[in-house]
Amino acid sequence: MTIDIRAIETREHCVEADQADVLASFREQFTIPADMIYLDGNSLGVMPSAAPARAQQVITVEWGTDLIESWNTNDWFDLPVRLGRKIARLVGGTDGGCVVTDTTSINVFKALGAAINLQREDAPERRVIISERENFPSDLYMIEGFIEMLDQGYELRLIDDLASLEGELNDDVAVVLLTEVNYRTGRLWNMKSVTETVHEAGALMIWDLCHSVGAVPINLEAAGADFAVGCTYKYLNGGPGSPAFIWVSGDHLARARQPLSGWWGHSEPFEMDVAYTPASDARKLLTGTQPIISLATMECGIDIALSVDQQQLREKSLNLTSLFIRLVEERLAHHPLTLVTPRETSERGSHVSIQHPEGFAVMKALIANGVVGDYREPEVLRFGITPLYLGYADVWDAVEMLRRVLDEELWRAPEFQVRGAVT
Amino acid sequence: MTIDIRAIETREHCVEADQADVLASFREQFTIPADMIYLDGNSLGVMPSAAPARAQQVITVEWGTDLIESWNTNDWFDLPVRLGRKIARLVGGTDGGCVVTDTTSINVFKALGAAINLQREDAPERRVIISERENFPSDLYMIEGFIEMLDQGYELRLIDDLASLEGELNDDVAVVLLTEVNYRTGRLWNMKSVTETVHEAGALMIWDLCHSVGAVPINLEAAGADFAVGCTYKYLNGGPGSPAFIWVSGDHLARARQPLSGWWGHSEPFEMDVAYTPASDARKLLTGTQPIISLATMECGIDIALSVDQQQLREKSLNLTSLFIRLVEERLAHHPLTLVTPRETSERGSHVSIQHPEGFAVMKALIANGVVGDYREPEVLRFGITPLYLGYADVWDAVEMLRRVLDEELWRAPEFQVRGAVT
Repeated sequence: MTIDIRAIETREHCVEADQADVLASFREQFTIPADMIYLDGNSLGVMPSAAPARAQQVITVEWGTDLIESWNTNDWFDLPVRLGRKIARLVGGTDGGCVVTDTTSINVFKALGAAINLQREDAPERRVIISERENFPSDLYMIEGFIEMLDQGYELRLIDDLASLEGELNDDVAVVLLTEVNYRTGRLWNMKSVTETVHEAGALMIWDLCHSVGAVPINLEAAGADFAVGCTYKYLNGGPGSPAFIWVSGDHLARARQPLSGWWGHSEPFEMDVAYTPASDARKLLTGTQPIISLATMECGIDIALSVDQQQLREKSLNLTSLFIRLVEERLAHHPLTLVTPRETSERGSHVSIQHPEGFAVMKALIANGVVGDYREPEVLRFGITPLYLGYADVWDAVEMLRRVLDEELWRAPEFQVRGAVT
Repeated sequence: MTIDIRAIETREHCVEADQADVLASFREQFTIPADMIYLDGNSLGVMPSAAPARAQQVITVEWGTDLIESWNTNDWFDLPVRLGRKIARLVGGTDGGCVVTDTTSINVFKALGAAINLQREDAPERRVIISERENFPSDLYMIEGFIEMLDQGYELRLIDDLASLEGELNDDVAVVLLTEVNYRTGRLWNMKSVTETVHEAGALMIWDLCHSVGAVPINLEAAGADFAVGCTYKYLNGGPGSPAFIWVSGDHLARARQPLSGWWGHSEPFEMDVAYTPASDARKLLTGTQPIISLATMECGIDIALSVDQQQLREKSLNLTSLFIRLVEERLAHHPLTLVTPRETSERGSHVSIQHPEGFAVMKALIANGVVGDYREPEVLRFGITPLYLGYADVWDAVEMLRRVLDEELWRAPEFQVRGAVT
C-alpha cells in the first residue's frame, strides 16, 4: 500500500501512515531509548537488540574459552571477507572483491593507492586527483597525505558541482573521488552518469558510500564503479567505530595492488615469506589483524540491512524526508530557516539539513528536549531520517519540537550557548 | 623472596615456588579455562575477568542508551589518547606522543612514513631501509608496499644479526626497523646499544614491541628510540585484534608528519577545513574513527599490566622460561629437540621455541591434551610463557605433557597430521 504523504495534515494522519508502513516492524529489531526521537542515525546508528548477546558470545566464549583456536573454529580469520560478501550484496558489487576492515580513511588511502598504481601502468602522465570541496574533509586529507608522501607532482583539484567536474576532466586526471551523499547537505550524486562521464575522460572512479549505504539503493556494478569505500556505523548500525569496507570491481580485482600490504593481504599469510605476494581475491585489500569484538558485533546490523527491500527503504526514506521538509516549511515559515538539502528527491540522500542563524543553540535545545539531531558548521542543523527505525509520527513530533524550540525561543537558555566538542 | 629455580627438581618444588611467587595473585584477575595450560599468550592473551562487564557497559549503556553523546560524555573521542598515555607509561615514553589505534602493520606504515619525511628534510640522499630477514613478515611487507608506492629508488636491505646490521649501516641508510623480541625465536635485541649504533650512523630507529610489551621491561626514552609500534592483544591481554599503538619520541613529536593524515589527526577535526593541519600532539598519529567496543574493552588488560612491577615480571618470566628449557633438556634429552630460543637470559624474551622434526603433529597432540602452544614454520613448537598468569607448576605440567606426547608417540595419531590454517 502506497502512502501518500501529500495527504498528511495532522499527527493522526501520521499514525495512520505508520500503521500502513510495510517496514514499520523493523523498529522492533532495535533498542531505542524511550522518550527520544533519534535523528542522528546518519552519524551513529542505534543498537540492534541482538548486538549485546553477540558481543558477549565473542568475548566470554570465543575469546574467554576457545581462545587462540577461535581464529579457525569461530572463523575469526574469515570474518572480514565473510562480512565483505554481505556488503557486496548490499551495494551491487558481488562480482568484485569486498572486505570489512580498518577505517574509511585508511580504505580511501588503499583505494587511491590501488587506482594510482593502475594508472601508473596505463597512463602514468595522469597526475591529477579530483574531489569535491564539500567532501567530508577526511577524504581530502587522505588525498593530501598521499600526494605529499609520493612527492611526484601529483595534484588535488577540487570541484563544486557537476559542471565544474566536467570542466576539470581532461587527459591529466588519474582518479576522481566523490562521496555519493554529502555529509553536510545530503545532496546525492547520480552515480551512474557521473561514473560514465569520468570514464569517458579516462579517469578511474572511487565512490565513498559513507552516507548512502543502508539508506539509498546502490548498484556499483551497474554504475561501472572502479572502487568504493564506506562506513558501517551509520545506516548499517554496526556500532561505534565499527570497521569500514572497501570494494574493488571485478575488472580490477586481479591487477589491483594497494600500498598497505600487510600480512592479512598476503596470498599465504602463514608461510611467513620474506616477500609480499598479494592474495588473488578480496583479501588483498586487507592489511593487519582486525578488532574482532567490534567486527563480529557489527554483523547484527548488516543482517538487518540485508533483510530489507532497498527500494521500499528508499521510498520510505524519501517519504519521511519530504514530509519533514514540507512540515518545516508549512509550520515554521515565520522563522529564518534555510533548506540546505536538495528539494528534488532524485538528488537527496536520507538526511535533511537546515540552516538557522542560531543553529548551534537550536540543536542543543532540541537535544535537551529529546529530539537528537546534530550540528555541522556553519549553523547547520542536521536531521538523519533513518527509515529502518523511524516513522511518520516521529517526523511530526520532531517538527513540532522544533516549532516549540523556535516559537518559545527555548534555544536562548544560557546552557545552550556554550560550544564544546560537537560530534 | 627470591625463587631459586636451580633447586627445583620435582613438581612439589614447583608448587612451593608458586606459593612464594609475589606475582601469583595476578592470575585471579583473568579467566582461564579449566584443565588448560595456556602457553599462547604471546599470540592471544587470555581474558581479564573485568572485560565482559566493561564491554557490556560500552554496548548497552554508552552505545544503546547514550548514543551519539558518548563521543563527548563517555569520552570516546579521547580514548586513543588516554590509552596511549597508559602505554607510554608502560614503555618509558611519557615525554613522547603515544596513541592506541589501528593495527600494528598500519602503524608501521605511519612510523616509516614519518621517519622518511624527517630524513627527506635532513638527509634526502639516504634511501635505504634496513630490517631483519627474520622479522615478523608483515613489517617487511609494509616496507615493501611503502617503497613500491614511493617508486623513488628506496631500497629494503635485510640483516641477520648485529654484525650484519653494523656492516650495512652507512650514509645511505635512512631508517632501521627491528622487532625487539623475535616472533619465532624469542631472541631479544639490546634496544639501547642497537639504537646508539643506528644513531651513530645517522639513521632513525623504529622499534616493533609486539612480542616484548607487557613481558619485558622497556624504556624507549632511555634507549633514545625515535619511533615505536606494538600490539595490545598479546602480553597486554587486550582482546582479539584489539587496536595497536604507535609512539613518537618527544624529540620528533613537533616535526613528525605521518602519511595517513585522516581527520582524527587534524588539529581541529570539527572545523571541517579543506586543508589538513596536523594536531601538535600525539593525536597527529591518528587517522580515522576507532572501533570503540574493542578499544574500550582493551583497557582492562592495560590496567592490569600497569599495576605490575616490570622488574618482578621480568624476573619471573626468565625463571619460568629457564625452568622450561632446563626441564625439557633434562627430561626429554632422548628426543630430537633443538632449542631455537637463546639460552642467554639477556637475549631472551618471554617465549620458548623448540624445533622437532614432527613439530606440527607434536603441537596438535599437545593442544588435544590441554597444553596450548602454537606452531610456526619450519617445525617450530612455540610456547608463550606469560608470567602474569602462569606458574611454576604449569611449566612442570606442560613439560610433563610434552614428555608423554613424545615418549608415547601420541603425535602419530592420524588426526594430528592434517595441516589446515594454523594461527
